[in-house]
Amino acid sequence: METRPYVPWDLMNSFMIDVFKKYGVPEEDAAICADVLLESDRRGIESHGCNRFKPIYLDRIDNGTLLPVTKMDIVKETPTTVVMDANNGMGMVASYHMMKKLIEKAKTYGMAGGAIYNSTHYGIAGYWTTMAEKEGMIGISGTNARPSVAPTFGVEPMMGTNPLTFTMPTDEEFPFNFDCATSIVQNGKIEFYEREGKPTPAGLVVTKDGGTMTDSGAILREMRAGNCALLSIGGLGEETGGYKGYGFTTIVEILSAALAGGPFMKELSGKNPDGTNKMYRLGHFFFVINPEFFMGLDTFKKTAGGILRGLRESEKAPGAERIYTAGEKEWLAWQERKDKGVPVGDSIQKELVELREKFGLDYKFPFEA
Amino acid sequence: METRPYVPWDLMNSFMIDVFKKYGVPEEDAAICADVLLESDRRGIESHGCNRFKPIYLDRIDNGTLLPVTKMDIVKETPTTVVMDANNGMGMVASYHMMKKLIEKAKTYGMAGGAIYNSTHYGIAGYWTTMAEKEGMIGISGTNARPSVAPTFGVEPMMGTNPLTFTMPTDEEFPFNFDCATSIVQNGKIEFYEREGKPTPAGLVVTKDGGTMTDSGAILREMRAGNCALLSIGGLGEETGGYKGYGFTTIVEILSAALAGGPFMKELSGKNPDGTNKMYRLGHFFFVINPEFFMGLDTFKKTAGGILRGLRESEKAPGAERIYTAGEKEWLAWQERKDKGVPVGDSIQKELVELREKFGLDYKFPFEA
Repeated sequence: METRPYVPWDLMNSFMIDVFKKYGVPEEDAAICADVLLESDRRGIESHGCNRFKPIYLDRIDNGTLLPVTKMDIVKETPTTVVMDANNGMGMVASYHMMKKLIEKAKTYGMAGGAIYNSTHYGIAGYWTTMAEKEGMIGISGTNARPSVAPTFGVEPMMGTNPLTFTMPTDEEFPFNFDCATSIVQNGKIEFYEREGKPTPAGLVVTKDGGTMTDSGAILREMRAGNCALLSIGGLGEETGGYKGYGFTTIVEILSAALAGGPFMKELSGKNPDGTNKMYRLGHFFFVINPEFFMGLDTFKKTAGGILRGLRESEKAPGAERIYTAGEKEWLAWQERKDKGVPVGDSIQKELVELREKFGLDYKFPFEA
Repeated sequence: METRPYVPWDLMNSFMIDVFKKYGVPEEDAAICADVLLESDRRGIESHGCNRFKPIYLDRIDNGTLLPVTKMDIVKETPTTVVMDANNGMGMVASYHMMKKLIEKAKTYGMAGGAIYNSTHYGIAGYWTTMAEKEGMIGISGTNARPSVAPTFGVEPMMGTNPLTFTMPTDEEFPFNFDCATSIVQNGKIEFYEREGKPTPAGLVVTKDGGTMTDSGAILREMRAGNCALLSIGGLGEETGGYKGYGFTTIVEILSAALAGGPFMKELSGKNPDGTNKMYRLGHFFFVINPEFFMGLDTFKKTAGGILRGLRESEKAPGAERIYTAGEKEWLAWQERKDKGVPVGDSIQKELVELREKFGLDYKFPFEA
C-alpha cells in the first residue's frame, strides 16, 4: 500500500525540465533527460528515477563531472554502425541521438550497432531498448559503471553493475522488457534501501574476508573505499553458477569499452588517486535488430507473446500467486500510477522544495497542501 | 588427476567420421559433426563431447528424430540476415553453413544475424561463436532445447537450458569465451553426473512441492515426466536474482523461436502425447559483429585483453588460488589434452567398441592394449 504522496507526471516533468535548464542544460536536452528519469518512475524502478535527479545529475553538474551541454562527435559511421564521443556531456542525450540513428539504420539494413564513450550515467538501459521496441524492433543495450562488482573468487570491486538489457515486441499490451544489472542488485537499489532506512539482504555483497554485510549506508561507503564488493547473479563461488553471472558482467564490461576503445573498470571510478573528482568517461553499447529482415514483425510478436503466456500459465510453486514475465511488473506499476503521478518520499520532497527555493521557481507541490 | 585412458584426437576423429558415414551422414557433414563434438572435449566440456556421440546423435538417427542428410532451405536472405529451415537434419551442419554465410555478410556490412528452425541439437554454442572470433569478430548464439527449466515462482519444466553465448577476440593466446546454459546447470551436466555415478548438488533443481533433489538418474527421469525442473541462475524466488536468470533463459527462448517463427517450449519435447517420438524442431539464433566497423579489431582486442588481465590480477578471496576469465579453463584443458587425446571413461569405451564391432571397422583403441 503506497503511503507516500503523489506528484502529477506533468507537474514533475515541467519542474525537472525547468531545473535542468537552470543548471545549463538546453531545453530540448532537458526534456529528454526528464523523460528518461520519469520513465523509470513510471515503471516503478525507483532506484533510477527522480530519486537520482539531484544526486546523480544536478550535483555532478555542480561538481564538474557532468557537462550540461552535450557535444556529440560522431567519430565513425558506417551504414550499420556508429561510434560517438559524448565529451562528458549528458549520457541520456547522447544515447537518445544514438538510438535515433540506429533505428533508421536498422530500418534500411535490418541490423545496427552503436558505441558511445566519454559518457555519463544514461539512466535505465531499458529506455533505449524500448525506443527500438516502439519501432517494432529488438533493442539490446548495456553500459559500464563505477567499479562495484568482484569477479568469482575475488573480493575487489572491479566492474560496474553492468546491465545487459533486451526489449522485444510482443502481441500483448506491453513488451518483453528485461532491464536489470548483471549483479544480484545494483548501487541504485542499495541507495534506495539507504534512503528508506532499510538493510540490504545478506549474501548480495562480499567483504574482504569473504563474508557479507547488510548496513546499506556502510555498503555504499565501504564500496567506494574498495572494502566490499557486489556479487554477480549466481553469488559466491562456482557451484550455484556464480561464474555465469560474472561472465555476463564481463561481457558488458568488454562491449561497453572495447567497441569504442574507451576506458574500463578502475578508470571509471570518478576519482583521482588524491580523492578529487574526475570525469567518469563511461561507455555504452546499443544493438538494434529488425524482425522484418527475418520472418516479419507479426510472426515475431505472436511467437514471443505465446512464450510469455505459456510461462504465466504454467504450474506455480505452492504458495505462489502469480508467475510474471520480464516487463510485466513495470507495466503493472504504470497501470497503478498513470492517473496518480510519481510517489515521492520525504527526502525527495525536501530536494524538490530546496531546488524550487534556490531558483525561485513558481511551483506548488501537492504534498505541501 | 586424470585416471581415464586417452584416445588420440586423430584416431577419435576418424572413427567418429566413419561411424557417422555408416549412419548415412555424408562425409563432409560427418567431418563437421565430429569436429564440433571433439571441440567440446578439447575444451574440457565433457557434457557435450564424445559422451553424446551415441545417445544424442546416433541413437536419434536410429529412432528417426534426426535425419542424417541435412536439407537446408534458405527461406529468407537479405544483405545482413538469413533464415534457414534445417528440415530436421543435423543441427551442427546447418549451423556451420549459417555461420559461414553470416561471417561473409559481417565482413561486408559489419553486422549479421541468422535464425535456424526445424533443427536438432547443435553441439556447444561456443563452437559457432568461435567461428566468428577466429575471423576477428564477435559471435553471439543461443538455442532452445527440450523443456527443463521452470520460471520464477513456477515448478513446471517449460524452457530449455538455453545457452546465451558470447565469444570475443582478445590480444591474448585465447579468446573471451562465455559458453554456458542460462540454467544453473544443464541436462548434459546431469547426464555426466549420472554416467560418473555422482549426485547432483542440492538447490539446482525444483520439485513440485518447492523442494530439491540430488539423485542424478532420478532427476533425468522425473524431468522427462514433468515432475521436477531445473532452475535458472540466481535460483529460487527473487531475492538472490532468480528472476534475472529466468529473464536470460526467456530471452533465448524468444530469440530461438520468434525470429524464424518456429515452435517453442512444450512443442520441443520430442514426444507425442502418446509417448512416441517426434521431431525436436529446435531453433537457434546467431549474431556476428565486426569490430572493424567500430574502432577496429586491434583496439577491441587490446581493450578486452586489458579487462581480462585486470580481473585476473585483482584481489582474491582468502583461500582462492586464482581468478579465471571465461574461456580460460577451456584453454587450460586444451593445453593439458592436446598431446594426449580425449579421455574416455568406461561407458564411452564400451560404446566405441560396440560401434566398431557393429560396423566391422578396422580400429584399435589404446585402452584395449
